[in-house]
Amino acid sequence: GWTALMFASKNGQSHVVRELIRKGSDPLKVNSTGQTAQDLAEFWLHGEVVNILSSSTSQPEVNLQRRTNYLCDNPLDRSSKKRSDDVWMKGALTDPLSVFVVLSGLCPLVIPLNENKLVNDFFNFNSQLSDVKAKLARFSYEQALQLSPNLLQYYIFLGREQNEVDTTSGRNHKEDDDDYHRHHRHQQRGYHHGRSWFAVETKLSPTELHAIEPGITKLPFPLGFSSLMRSEAAIVCQARSMMAWHDRNQFCSTCGSASVAEEAGYKRRCRNDACKSNKGGAYNTCYPRLDPTVIMAISSPDNKRLLLGRNKRRHIPNMWSVLAGFMEPGESIEEACRREVFEETRVNVGEVSYHSSQPWPMPSTLMIGCIGRAIDSDIVIDESELAEARWFQTSEVKQMLDGTHPECLTLPPPQAIAHQLILQWLGSSETPGDTPLVTSQDRPSMTSSALSKSSL
Amino acid sequence: GWTALMFASKNGQSHVVRELIRKGSDPLKVNSTGQTAQDLAEFWLHGEVVNILSSSTSQPEVNLQRRTNYLCDNPLDRSSKKRSDDVWMKGALTDPLSVFVVLSGLCPLVIPLNENKLVNDFFNFNSQLSDVKAKLARFSYEQALQLSPNLLQYYIFLGREQNEVDTTSGRNHKEDDDDYHRHHRHQQRGYHHGRSWFAVETKLSPTELHAIEPGITKLPFPLGFSSLMRSEAAIVCQARSMMAWHDRNQFCSTCGSASVAEEAGYKRRCRNDACKSNKGGAYNTCYPRLDPTVIMAISSPDNKRLLLGRNKRRHIPNMWSVLAGFMEPGESIEEACRREVFEETRVNVGEVSYHSSQPWPMPSTLMIGCIGRAIDSDIVIDESELAEARWFQTSEVKQMLDGTHPECLTLPPPQAIAHQLILQWLGSSETPGDTPLVTSQDRPSMTSSALSKSSL
Repeated sequence: GWTALMFASKNGQSHVVRELIRKGSDPLKVNSTGQTAQDLAEFWLHGEVVNILSSSTSQPEVNLQRRTNYLCDNPLDRSSKKRSDDVWMKGALTDPLSVFVVLSGLCPLVIPLNENKLVNDFFNFNSQLSDVKAKLARFSYEQALQLSPNLLQYYIFLGREQNEVDTTSGRNHKEDDDDYHRHHRHQQRGYHHGRSWFAVETKLSPTELHAIEPGITKLPFPLGFSSLMRSEAAIVCQARSMMAWHDRNQFCSTCGSASVAEEAGYKRRCRNDACKSNKGGAYNTCYPRLDPTVIMAISSPDNKRLLLGRNKRRHIPNMWSVLAGFMEPGESIEEACRREVFEETRVNVGEVSYHSSQPWPMPSTLMIGCIGRAIDSDIVIDESELAEARWFQTSEVKQMLDGTHPECLTLPPPQAIAHQLILQWLGSSETPGDTPLVTSQDRPSMTSSALSKSSL
Repeated sequence: GWTALMFASKNGQSHVVRELIRKGSDPLKVNSTGQTAQDLAEFWLHGEVVNILSSSTSQPEVNLQRRTNYLCDNPLDRSSKKRSDDVWMKGALTDPLSVFVVLSGLCPLVIPLNENKLVNDFFNFNSQLSDVKAKLARFSYEQALQLSPNLLQYYIFLGREQNEVDTTSGRNHKEDDDDYHRHHRHQQRGYHHGRSWFAVETKLSPTELHAIEPGITKLPFPLGFSSLMRSEAAIVCQARSMMAWHDRNQFCSTCGSASVAEEAGYKRRCRNDACKSNKGGAYNTCYPRLDPTVIMAISSPDNKRLLLGRNKRRHIPNMWSVLAGFMEPGESIEEACRREVFEETRVNVGEVSYHSSQPWPMPSTLMIGCIGRAIDSDIVIDESELAEARWFQTSEVKQMLDGTHPECLTLPPPQAIAHQLILQWLGSSETPGDTPLVTSQDRPSMTSSALSKSSL
């Protein structure tokens, strides 16, 4: 059942939440679908409540049963069958309840959170994972039309809100195909099951935007990305990758003719009817592109040290991370891990096991996180990719996470899958007598810029 | 150390191998780098020996410690740093020892194996995994120039042969950068460490090809694909995906101008210098595309039944398989599994765990294999995708694998990751008292056409 703390969290009553915590309410209790009060606050976009709850709990970040990373757990049901249903889509687009997310130059428009002392401090590297600094600006159809006059020609259907209690349990709500308009009955009690979300693009200048919506600002990428709460970050990730794909695919790569968006943004069709891509067959060029990338925490043969590198192109000079690289045609995930590590450091890797995955909207990467064990340890770096690479002892890795490293070396923030892989390795390298794993409350963290790739 | 059986297998002496097996030689013995006699025969392309050894052993196909699928274990080191070294590449291209693989309409040229009774029987559905029916035709530079006169303008550098004893252990051989020409010293004893492989395209007609190379034939795709031995199939997979990418990307998708191949086939550059894609930044459109696809064996909530579907577009009417679908931007692997199963059957999935991966050259898919557990079991199929979907009992799945199903229902062959996922599920659903897992010798199998995707 639901606790008082859950109700207060869902309703965004931060003073009630603070009082309940002070009186001993347990923030780790879950309801019948496995959600904590914080899960509910995140879904209902109450940043202040999320911050209170997260600083009151000491949950370790790595949930081994359910390794979901930042940018995962998109709360929307993509309802892909609706994409080709023009009548339904027209109704959803013009529905006054539908939500429009607006991107400008691939950056989402957001509302800085006034109740949070870190407002607009997007470049603060000492923020916590759950320090929500901005919320996504949600526009109605009428508002979105002002910002994006050709909306009906170019939009992305992101999906529909699911039943509120199901959003974080991995369930999809069963429904009839004609249930779309049923939600009107429920809206009086804030129950928006079935409400549609769209992403559109605005070409307005910052000045023009400010004139229409004074409280709105453009969230810089990737530095500001970790300022959003999880559910909104996941939605932005989907929207940004889709729009970046359209941005780079205005022309057919098979014949060079102009192409046009179809199926609510999930397909591009070549305008040249004679083009091979219109003749049937498996023409992947018509569908959104994703770039699978392996990222791997590689331990020394005795599992006591971790291989970390410092990228030449990275913006933050003291930040180290695990190695990563794009996969190529004709290799498995495990082969790609071994190849990348060998290419960058000449270290040979034996066993490789999958850990978790994470979509990354730069522009549309699928990060595939693995843990591997080296079978030798001599390092010869590839100087075109890395500035440095070396083996780090467990104790040093902990200092980097804690922010207590004597040379101020740091690691990527919890939002990055790299961080989660490092935590996982630390757990596996610990002997029972050692210090327990650090938790998110014990250490400062950074924005997710570390993993950004400034070039391929 | 090496046994007599290993030496005979490496040298392709099938009569010696047969005699040694008859006298009790153990085919499962491994040398110091973990290779069996069959591994050596596969690497050295002795199809007859592979067949003898495989029918003499009863190794279960699923090696839980090292789940490598057909099309993985590419024996070549991609040596990606050489791709932009024009001087080195010119030397490797014209080296008389270099090996050229030739594709015609994306199908590789092969030599049917005369010693095998199944020669040319590409459509035989009862062949074993290791029934090697053809070997890849290997051409020299001079021969390749005849088949592909503009070879120097369009070729793919596949990589270099590694030290023979390291090919199946996941190791890469350490080497100096200038060791390329050193292999000449070793060639007298068949030791071709460092020998380069390339793929080129021929536009010659079958008649013209036959006039030049009478023993050569075009291997049909995907039906003939499983006729190659593992190491060659992996090389063809890489070559075919790369060539399919060039085939579909003759033009820049950002501006519509013509593009040109660079970096030994691993990059395409837009010829329009003013194009955004030439201005730096992460322009993924310049690099080979890969399509990550989830494929998942989903069990019933009690783990006693398996969810299988029959695709509308599949060529073989009685073949059932696990569900699969392309990933989309902004989702994790686990989310994609749940979404696909829900979209196709309305079954909700809870836990999902990764099993293994497989590259698939149709045209360049990365199959990401998972095992998942449903949290409900009512099926409503998506009729645009599936002809049928239902839950199968363990006993029925075994009959399908054994070829003893009363309605002649079958499953994909061992070469397909789907088959390996099903075997894995069968293992997990078995109680200790049950019949042990079937092995490859106990059951007939099929060509890998089952997984082919006739359209996106």
